Amino acid sequence: MKVSVIGLGLIGGSMAIALRQAGLAEELFGIDLKPENANKAIELGIVDRILPEGEALSKADLVILAIPVNASCACLPSVLDAVNNNATVIDLGSTKNLICRSVATHAKRAQFVASHPIAGTEYSGPEAAFYGLFQGKTNIICEPGKSSATSLAIAKKVFEAVGMNTIFMDPEEHDKHVAYVSHLSHVSSFLLGQTVLDIEKDEKNIFDLAGSGFASTVRLAKSSPDMWAPIFEQNAEYLSQALAEYIMHLQRFQYHLMKREGKELHKIMTKANEIKRVLDRK
Amino acid sequence: MKVSVIGLGLIGGSMAIALRQAGLAEELFGIDLKPENANKAIELGIVDRILPEGEALSKADLVILAIPVNASCACLPSVLDAVNNNATVIDLGSTKNLICRSVATHAKRAQFVASHPIAGTEYSGPEAAFYGLFQGKTNIICEPGKSSATSLAIAKKVFEAVGMNTIFMDPEEHDKHVAYVSHLSHVSSFLLGQTVLDIEKDEKNIFDLAGSGFASTVRLAKSSPDMWAPIFEQNAEYLSQALAEYIMHLQRFQYHLMKREGKELHKIMTKANEIKRVLDRK
Repeated sequence: MKVSVIGLGLIGGSMAIALRQAGLAEELFGIDLKPENANKAIELGIVDRILPEGEALSKADLVILAIPVNASCACLPSVLDAVNNNATVIDLGSTKNLICRSVATHAKRAQFVASHPIAGTEYSGPEAAFYGLFQGKTNIICEPGKSSATSLAIAKKVFEAVGMNTIFMDPEEHDKHVAYVSHLSHVSSFLLGQTVLDIEKDEKNIFDLAGSGFASTVRLAKSSPDMWAPIFEQNAEYLSQALAEYIMHLQRFQYHLMKREGKELHKIMTKANEIKRVLDRK
Repeated sequence: MKVSVIGLGLIGGSMAIALRQAGLAEELFGIDLKPENANKAIELGIVDRILPEGEALSKADLVILAIPVNASCACLPSVLDAVNNNATVIDLGSTKNLICRSVATHAKRAQFVASHPIAGTEYSGPEAAFYGLFQGKTNIICEPGKSSATSLAIAKKVFEAVGMNTIFMDPEEHDKHVAYVSHLSHVSSFLLGQTVLDIEKDEKNIFDLAGSGFASTVRLAKSSPDMWAPIFEQNAEYLSQALAEYIMHLQRFQYHLMKREGKELHKIMTKANEIKRVLDRK
């Protein structure tokens, strides 16, 4: 299969590496808006050739979109226009509702499979790509009924080849769920980082006291704003609900804290401990 | 040296293991309010003998307090009363101001060294104790001038033996700094866990979508409420300030989010990215 990957960063690059290893991609073409990323991807052997967009799209049996979600929405109609009638197009974005809507009435909608492989790190760019990123993780496909049997079969084959377990979900339901279990985590981490950087201006050497717990909660604050700003914007409604709930819980905690109500704090933490059930299952 | 460890959990247990390995503890006595912890500590070879409190204190050259910080405040005066005149008492609690105050005017204040080794995991109890917990981490000693030269030298030897680098700090300053770089992380994690557990009641299978990012930010929500409720209560003033700042940042983010101001979100995240400087130094 000839595969064109649009966006040669952490996700697109890791997908290219995995598809080549699995023997699914005989030839890999790449596109990236940033020439330095394109050159790096060639240098690292992630793709075989960088092609102009038209050529990369018309030659491919499979096109993979791994670009910021606003760019996916904007490009997807013209990508579908340009691919040949037997090609399959898969996107890997972290929101699904607006992306699905962007091609809802497109003549070649059936050639598209809306996907979200739940995998990533806080790093970005082709140097961050690695073999095994997707191994053992969950992939979500939305609106499988709107994809042709052929394209859906290809997508399933792709995600199976990279070691993922695919589940199916409605795009709205997907966006709501990831607002809570992924997007909110990123916001909490970004703002925790911000809060501590702010206080650092007045308190020198504050970070000498930061332990592994701090590193763990703030790790995601290293993530790429180019990738995350569009995700947050596209999922603003559900993320805003999640944030409102989170802030409400924090304020209730602060209220009991200011009143030195240790028993109430203990009760809240004991309830939160139940997260063990989730983390230990993973 | 004969060492008595009061509190045979993650911290006390790991300290006992490390001191034996380093050859500093010839004999290790243990005290724990929970008989099951005491028995487990014997079973695991963490301490040699469980002794009644009076005997454990009068026989020891070194007493280590590794119990919740409210218990340390309550016990410390009578512990100092009971130890012999050549013994050193070290506490390992995560707050320092109230603990230092609890023995400020004690006749044997000079035999006490107020310490906070910045090390831990989200697990608790003697089974969680392990060799190497303190290795390469930072220890803080507060009010070194109020400890005798002998006791301070013993404390330095202890923390060096377990692989720690000791720095010195005023207790107020200590409590303020750890409010931001440790206690706030724990609150953010506990409440993030709570928020997602809450939404789970309505949304089944939401955790199928949780990735490694979620696991990382929510890990500390598994921590022991028995240990953390007293810490939060004792550090309520500074932690409350830190929480107010964090909530303010979250609300500003939510405001821009609701207005779909992607550029503002991008700006906030780019600033937060500066945390790389801190994390990569560690």
